[in-house]
Amino acid sequence: MRTQKKPPKPDERDRSVAIYAKAAEVIHAKGFAATSMSDIAEAVDLTKAGLYYYIESKEDLLFGIMSYAMDRLESKVIEPARAEPDPETRLRTLISRHARLLTEGNTSITILTDEVAGLTPKHRRLIVGRKRAYFDLVRDTLDEVKRAGKLRDADTTVAAFGLFGMLLWLPRWYQPKGRLTKDQVIEEVTTNALKGLLNTSL
Amino acid sequence: MRTQKKPPKPDERDRSVAIYAKAAEVIHAKGFAATSMSDIAEAVDLTKAGLYYYIESKEDLLFGIMSYAMDRLESKVIEPARAEPDPETRLRTLISRHARLLTEGNTSITILTDEVAGLTPKHRRLIVGRKRAYFDLVRDTLDEVKRAGKLRDADTTVAAFGLFGMLLWLPRWYQPKGRLTKDQVIEEVTTNALKGLLNTSL
Repeated sequence: MRTQKKPPKPDERDRSVAIYAKAAEVIHAKGFAATSMSDIAEAVDLTKAGLYYYIESKEDLLFGIMSYAMDRLESKVIEPARAEPDPETRLRTLISRHARLLTEGNTSITILTDEVAGLTPKHRRLIVGRKRAYFDLVRDTLDEVKRAGKLRDADTTVAAFGLFGMLLWLPRWYQPKGRLTKDQVIEEVTTNALKGLLNTSL
Repeated sequence: MRTQKKPPKPDERDRSVAIYAKAAEVIHAKGFAATSMSDIAEAVDLTKAGLYYYIESKEDLLFGIMSYAMDRLESKVIEPARAEPDPETRLRTLISRHARLLTEGNTSITILTDEVAGLTPKHRRLIVGRKRAYFDLVRDTLDEVKRAGKLRDADTTVAAFGLFGMLLWLPRWYQPKGRLTKDQVIEEVTTNALKGLLNTSL
């Protein structure tokens, strides 16, 4: 999703995405409120005027970063999961693919979690709406697993929030050069989450 | 813990705690970087000069809030858990008591999670040290449960971080007037967490 009015040329689109990625790192390190457009311009090697060619305002930049993060979540997690007809497989796909995305060092996805307060009301409605659709997919999947008799007697809303907590905390502690490989961490997180909810042995 | 040099009189101590609680609400709503000492003074009905009688600086205030939150965590969660000799009961006590604390609308505890970057390096070391001791208690408890043969074959570090994720996400979604009672939410969260890790039936 774009924040500019004119449809961008392909080069500009790439440049905007590169700016989002770099800006996400700066905002992640300093916090949105403490980050200035000058900080961003410096990080992406542009003058402030040059930056304003791509980005209308700090709020637009934040919206661009979050939209980019949601686009990635949709293509890497939501679409592959929706393609799974079996609800238990879909649940596992959602958890493990989201965990993988979160280990891939993309700070835009942590900003999606932590900086919603910085958005304009209109942008906030759009982002919160997309997040809500994802939450509903996870909870609906849990409901389907439950109807299939494979979930223990758990409240699916609390269970869905529990899954999000486990997942969204991951970037705060995961270390790419840690004791466990990325695949091991993803497997551990996925199994802990599923084991807590399913009544079948995995 | 206090940030002033002189030992405070009892009245001043109460007043400081009241300021921490109110300031925590303001910081929680606006974010630490965007909150000014004038915002805090206004919220606690003091002049800025009056506020500086109790609080030396914005960074000291943040440290005071976090120390107060850690004190509460210690008295309400850590001490009762340490008194439990059985590791499985201790684990359940840690999870359910921490969940309860997080449902009690005390915003200082969410600031403890989200605003560590705003501390001075010295204060950060102190707070991170106390958090680390708590993390170690949870992981050591998981290790004990494992040695007792009651944990499935899970990595206890990843498991401990998973528990923290589930718990620390709670204040972001819990609604005191929601469909479930506070006790039901605490029970659901505790069971989801324990079921994911124990190999015994609950």
